[in-house]
Amino acid sequence: VSAAPPELTALHERAAILSDLGHIHSLLFWDQNTVMPPDGARARGDHAATLEVVAHERLTDPELGRLLDALEPWAAGQDPDADDVRLLRELRRDFEKAVRVPTSLAAELSRAAALGQADWQEARAASDFSRFRDALERQLELRHRYVECFTGFEHPYDVLLDDFEPGMTTAMLRPLLGELCDGLVPLLAELAEDGPKPVGGAFGGPHEVEHQRRAVMDILEGVGFDPDGWRLDIAPHPFAQRIAPGDVRITTRYDMHDFTGAYFGTLHEFGHGLYEAGIPDRLARSPLGTPVSLGVHESQSRLWENVVGRSRPFCAWALPRLQQHLPAWPAATTVDDLYRGVNTVHRTLIRVESDETTYNLHIVLRFELELALIEGQLAVDELPHAWNEAIHRLLGLDVPDDAVGVLQDVHWGAGLIGYFPTYSLGNLMAAQLWEAIRTDLPEIDAQLERGEFAPLRGWLRERVHSHGRKLRAPELLHRVTGQELAVEPFLRYLREKLTDAGVLRAAPR
Amino acid sequence: VSAAPPELTALHERAAILSDLGHIHSLLFWDQNTVMPPDGARARGDHAATLEVVAHERLTDPELGRLLDALEPWAAGQDPDADDVRLLRELRRDFEKAVRVPTSLAAELSRAAALGQADWQEARAASDFSRFRDALERQLELRHRYVECFTGFEHPYDVLLDDFEPGMTTAMLRPLLGELCDGLVPLLAELAEDGPKPVGGAFGGPHEVEHQRRAVMDILEGVGFDPDGWRLDIAPHPFAQRIAPGDVRITTRYDMHDFTGAYFGTLHEFGHGLYEAGIPDRLARSPLGTPVSLGVHESQSRLWENVVGRSRPFCAWALPRLQQHLPAWPAATTVDDLYRGVNTVHRTLIRVESDETTYNLHIVLRFELELALIEGQLAVDELPHAWNEAIHRLLGLDVPDDAVGVLQDVHWGAGLIGYFPTYSLGNLMAAQLWEAIRTDLPEIDAQLERGEFAPLRGWLRERVHSHGRKLRAPELLHRVTGQELAVEPFLRYLREKLTDAGVLRAAPR
Repeated sequence: VSAAPPELTALHERAAILSDLGHIHSLLFWDQNTVMPPDGARARGDHAATLEVVAHERLTDPELGRLLDALEPWAAGQDPDADDVRLLRELRRDFEKAVRVPTSLAAELSRAAALGQADWQEARAASDFSRFRDALERQLELRHRYVECFTGFEHPYDVLLDDFEPGMTTAMLRPLLGELCDGLVPLLAELAEDGPKPVGGAFGGPHEVEHQRRAVMDILEGVGFDPDGWRLDIAPHPFAQRIAPGDVRITTRYDMHDFTGAYFGTLHEFGHGLYEAGIPDRLARSPLGTPVSLGVHESQSRLWENVVGRSRPFCAWALPRLQQHLPAWPAATTVDDLYRGVNTVHRTLIRVESDETTYNLHIVLRFELELALIEGQLAVDELPHAWNEAIHRLLGLDVPDDAVGVLQDVHWGAGLIGYFPTYSLGNLMAAQLWEAIRTDLPEIDAQLERGEFAPLRGWLRERVHSHGRKLRAPELLHRVTGQELAVEPFLRYLREKLTDAGVLRAAPR
Repeated sequence: VSAAPPELTALHERAAILSDLGHIHSLLFWDQNTVMPPDGARARGDHAATLEVVAHERLTDPELGRLLDALEPWAAGQDPDADDVRLLRELRRDFEKAVRVPTSLAAELSRAAALGQADWQEARAASDFSRFRDALERQLELRHRYVECFTGFEHPYDVLLDDFEPGMTTAMLRPLLGELCDGLVPLLAELAEDGPKPVGGAFGGPHEVEHQRRAVMDILEGVGFDPDGWRLDIAPHPFAQRIAPGDVRITTRYDMHDFTGAYFGTLHEFGHGLYEAGIPDRLARSPLGTPVSLGVHESQSRLWENVVGRSRPFCAWALPRLQQHLPAWPAATTVDDLYRGVNTVHRTLIRVESDETTYNLHIVLRFELELALIEGQLAVDELPHAWNEAIHRLLGLDVPDDAVGVLQDVHWGAGLIGYFPTYSLGNLMAAQLWEAIRTDLPEIDAQLERGEFAPLRGWLRERVHSHGRKLRAPELLHRVTGQELAVEPFLRYLREKLTDAGVLRAAPR
């Protein structure tokens, strides 16, 4: 082993400070969305902007570039899997992206995100797209200016995608989502009609919030929530954040008349939290100590929410716990009732309320529209019409107003274009990982039914979480599953479960 | 009005960022002491250190010095009370102090504070001073190195004082605390014997924590706690922090068998919070938007805790509220009982449990010992003996062990030498302010008894809070009271109240 050059220590110090600033930013976000008094909101924007300015200054410091230049010849002779070699690669990526974007544009993007969200909130409350159109136009214009900072891409949408799913391209995504859509539409057609919403059954309660909280905590502590290192709080828009090793914070919301939100929502956020909790301490104060992509992040939350949480063995384990903590839960519910209930397919206008099958059609729709907007094929004013047409085409539903149509999501107001596809990528990856898990852990069903989650957690930690950002998503997936990203495992998983749960008739194919 | 030079805008931007970083630091502190999962502690130290490094870099940036130099000729022609003129003066002060301290020493001071607190905790738990002596020796050595960074002072202790009470000197403090001691010792001698501890009476309960919380919230909302802009949380060592305008956070702790801690503790922290809440929005993102000194800060907390909170009219207003929320509160308690109970004098070994009269003797003792340590008159190994001797001389008590003696406070372990005197300065100022308040608000007693706190809040905001850091403490006190800092008003206030409450016999003098 050749001695590490002295520049490496300086690089580690800079990496640690960048990492700390990112985690402090996470804390500001958590605080704002859980405990901050309402009147503190205005100043919080200033605090967050200041942290961004400070972090951007440090990330674009020419001295960082000099350190990277000085270290690259050394790295070329090292094991390519070594932490420091990967650190150089990822810091190089962050540095090169940051220096291309002028500070003034970065500030405009940040300001437009805050203003765009405010305009979106107003427009959605009034269910009036016309109040949002200017903000969206502005976001698109800023995205184009952002794209222009970069070179060497095939499609402008690639630049946007890359911020959320490094290396993903439009050329890869288009056939993937096309194939997914082609598999889902006939599956949906096989279902003679929508099943009942689970909220109509045992989940509808009404369940007191305190009962829901106890049920959720019991389930969470069962799957691996450690009260010494985790928190569960209430937030209007649930999320998960790791502030530091030993400080993982997940959030949920409670609806008296619908326990599905708190139940599957906390399992979802638990999956996100477990991913970040599983990143090893040695990477914690480094840009390597973060999730590699939103798609991989979502694969972890979907795996716990859907693949595990809606499985028959998990239903068998969870049912007595739900019955114990929720007095309004019908005593006669069987495991089959629960299993079938949480797997019904029910077309809805709202993405976040949709089931596993139709969810991805909501993503296909957004991807199509985002591409058309970025390519200039679709004018902002035509967007509501295009939205309603696509909902009818994909789901057979009519959109009564913009609030439950084109205005339902915050993302575009916040400038998050290229983000939606990562939700479906997460679904696909979760199914691929699950096939590998079933191979490696043949007893997994029996373990889940007995509430033995340690083998699954251990597998995920070793195969996925422990890498942090060291392996890009395709490399990670290939090492774990031997496969490229693919649609078929997800369709197979879905068809199998829907059939097993009795939602889909096992018709001759 | 001459046009402001362009450098002023740049200075404002830098001031805003420095101010934001300070407030973010406050949020990290609040979070760590209230809601952070225990396992997050180690990383929180890194996050706080990173913020300090970033803030220190910006505060010592030579460009800041150039801006200050460029603006001073302009400021010389402006109204000396103008915000920008005061901003220049205070930023100049912060800049000059920061650049004198090498970054390496600043880092050592910060690290020693964390380590010293840990050593102190261990030593106190074992009641063994010998486990703390090395840490204290190290703190003293670092203080001497810190003092050596500066020039032009009369006494090395002045340099330490100046960090907590700008402009205060040993030469001013020595006669002031001497006079205070000379007034308190005979007052104490007049009390034939100690009164009962209030904890033995109605405050002893036992009172359930939830009942205490409700009582405290009712009292707090009565005096001016606004739930849209304030929070009350539990912390092991209570404190108050303003994170931003509209975001004031106070903390307390609950003891089933002693309601005095939660009751007077929250009034104390409310006073701190109200000070910071009263700093005007236009100063919020500026170094001017902070309290001017710890002494003035403490004057506000002591005013609400002691001068208001232990007054007869306040007791009359609060009593029915306490009776309403605390089922274990004796129904027969009269206002006189409460008034006398919260004003008994009871010598105790512990500073934070002591009454208004003996409290200041605890400070005199610490001031004497700190001076002797800094002057080299007292060796660290002699400190426990010197402590015990002084406690006997000033309070007539014997110290059974170090835990309730020299090891009782965290301050020295954290390197906070020169801090204790500000507690007594706060007591003196509170009494001086109260004399001015009684003159300006002749109806104050009747208002307090009716629960009309707005006139008092308005007076404090206008006369004290609204200046932020624009007026140094002596200037502030002089503008408001027409006086210099003095001992007599406090002694007058104390003697008058103790006589009125029947604690001190109205003996012929």
